[in-house]
Amino acid sequence: ADVKKIAVIAGDGIGPEVVAEAIKVMKKTEELFGYRFEFEHGLFGGIAIDEKGTPLPEETLAICKKADAVLLGAVGGPKWDNNSKELRPETGLLGIRKALGLFSNIRPANVFDCLKEASTLKPEVLEGTDLIVVRELTGGIYFGEKFRREGANGQEAVDTCVYNVTEVERIVRQAFEIAQTRRKKLASVDKANVLETSRLWREVVNRIAPEYPDVELEHVLVDNCAMQLLRRPSSFDVIVTENMFGDILSDEAAMLTGSIGMLSSASLGEGAFGLYEPVHGSAPDIAGQGISNPIATILSVALMYRLTFGYHDAAEAIEHAVKEVLDAGHRTGDIAVDKSKAIGTVAMGELIVNAI
Amino acid sequence: ADVKKIAVIAGDGIGPEVVAEAIKVMKKTEELFGYRFEFEHGLFGGIAIDEKGTPLPEETLAICKKADAVLLGAVGGPKWDNNSKELRPETGLLGIRKALGLFSNIRPANVFDCLKEASTLKPEVLEGTDLIVVRELTGGIYFGEKFRREGANGQEAVDTCVYNVTEVERIVRQAFEIAQTRRKKLASVDKANVLETSRLWREVVNRIAPEYPDVELEHVLVDNCAMQLLRRPSSFDVIVTENMFGDILSDEAAMLTGSIGMLSSASLGEGAFGLYEPVHGSAPDIAGQGISNPIATILSVALMYRLTFGYHDAAEAIEHAVKEVLDAGHRTGDIAVDKSKAIGTVAMGELIVNAI
Ligand SMILES: CC(C)[C@H](C(=O)O)[C@@H](O)C(=O)O
Ligand SMILES: CC(C)[C@H](C(=O)O)[C@@H](O)C(=O)O
Repeated sequence: ADVKKIAVIAGDGIGPEVVAEAIKVMKKTEELFGYRFEFEHGLFGGIAIDEKGTPLPEETLAICKKADAVLLGAVGGPKWDNNSKELRPETGLLGIRKALGLFSNIRPANVFDCLKEASTLKPEVLEGTDLIVVRELTGGIYFGEKFRREGANGQEAVDTCVYNVTEVERIVRQAFEIAQTRRKKLASVDKANVLETSRLWREVVNRIAPEYPDVELEHVLVDNCAMQLLRRPSSFDVIVTENMFGDILSDEAAMLTGSIGMLSSASLGEGAFGLYEPVHGSAPDIAGQGISNPIATILSVALMYRLTFGYHDAAEAIEHAVKEVLDAGHRTGDIAVDKSKAIGTVAMGELIVNAI
Repeated sequence: ADVKKIAVIAGDGIGPEVVAEAIKVMKKTEELFGYRFEFEHGLFGGIAIDEKGTPLPEETLAICKKADAVLLGAVGGPKWDNNSKELRPETGLLGIRKALGLFSNIRPANVFDCLKEASTLKPEVLEGTDLIVVRELTGGIYFGEKFRREGANGQEAVDTCVYNVTEVERIVRQAFEIAQTRRKKLASVDKANVLETSRLWREVVNRIAPEYPDVELEHVLVDNCAMQLLRRPSSFDVIVTENMFGDILSDEAAMLTGSIGMLSSASLGEGAFGLYEPVHGSAPDIAGQGISNPIATILSVALMYRLTFGYHDAAEAIEHAVKEVLDAGHRTGDIAVDKSKAIGTVAMGELIVNAI
């Protein structure tokens, strides 16, 4: 098979631990399915600030650009929280999204059977919840001009939210296409009763919609969506929205599943290239203790196999292995009911590798 | 007693029905407590569009400006949803906030005992939830410059989010002061890792905080707040945030209580003047049937008594009457478990009036 280049950016906190297990899983699929991967590691986030003086070193970006896919652990931690903007891990995150043209963030929010009880929502409300938030990732208020100026009432700060037709069109098309492969329902979320960017957004959605007649479309205002996610989570299939709303709603959706430690995500650009990472953060409080849960990162590999490489069999094998290990009752501390029986990161990784 | 002028804008849908009951409650307190109110009615929202060709007629604004407080029902409905911007009810809402200088939206989110089960959250998670979202209401991306322009990639839309130090300071001070009267905890919500307006916001909060040493302050990123509201709602006391984030989070908070049909709100400016309205919408689907729930509007009167007039005894009497009627098992359709036993708007209003 041809060699696929994987850029590995383990990052901070528990990032390196969980990524190590995900790589073992990839190696196991090399053996079993005959794939070939070449891994190249890059520094990113807090560790890159410490070692290179910038959260996103040129070398790391170069490694990513040469790669077919990126596997990311997690970045950030209190150590860098009070740094100036240029020296913050988040700045690296925004930089890598922009530099790699990753305009689409795919955030599945589904419920793991064994974690149903972990949700703060009633089980009967959660029943059947399986949605994907498609978040625009390189536009909007995140990347518009920002500055300070002297105004009539003292200093003021300005952020600019900009969207052009092309940016909206590509993300909305992607969302329609994803909906076509699922339950064929798309909720487009905006604030068209207030924002000009939202009015443009809605116009584009309405113009494109007739090309996807098999998909049922609804427009939902962002405040209403924040409510409906709580009231009827299972009624959503695909949600598409702009960057800032997507940041908030994808986290709300993830949390309501109760399975946040298990959720994977993909950030995609044009073509098959993608960056894959767990939804959870760098968890500095438990880093280095070998007790973190590698499942979200391992499932991010499955997502990579599906979306970037079309390795559907192996993706299924991974997902199935995870299910098997969980069904057998194995748990890391974060998802264990009886914490005294919790197993560590490496043990969980090994069990999954063996189950593939 | 001196006469208090009340501007009444009943609005659309169920607005007139629920406002009528709230006025009966006010009249009862005139009798019992010796207050004197003078009511002047104004057209607003959809009905004003139909009758006057604008959602916020000059006369209505004049009535509000002369008044000591405004009682608002609800505005909007599908009939006006596809109107151009100038002819939409929401435009009236934004207009009245700006024209009356209502920079602060107070949104209590608490759980009514009889509605605990109505929440989609587990009762044990909800237990003790009693928070207030203090939302900045006349700044930010709602009121910044908005326009279209031709860009390199076709047409683009622009919204501008602006905050000055004065705007942030006054709302944050108000939130600190509210926290001082409660459990003395303030969560300031921003997106300081991305937005310049949020960085200004956080600077102001940190500068002011030492003046309120008895209040415990935490900074919470907006995406994290959307999650924490779900995970630990009862741990929040007062949340203060900017306009757009407040729109989303106050609705999320309201919905998680399960009591959205019962929640009141206040919009305040400098001084004692305020606009009071239920959190629920105009519910056009049930308008005119006499089955809507007037309790949120009646409780908005109690909020008006407390915040604008300092009529604490009467506020308590109203709140107590509501509790008594609910405890006796009376329910409107929206909150009834056994819908066949539900009572109507007028019957509910009468029960509460008699219980005061
Ligand atoms: C760290 C932050 C800049 C980032 C974002 O807001 O995009 C994060 O919250 C995320 O969702 O990946
Ligand atoms: C109708 C709309 C403009 C308004 C807002 O976003 O402020 C509403 O959602 C609210 O919260 O009062």
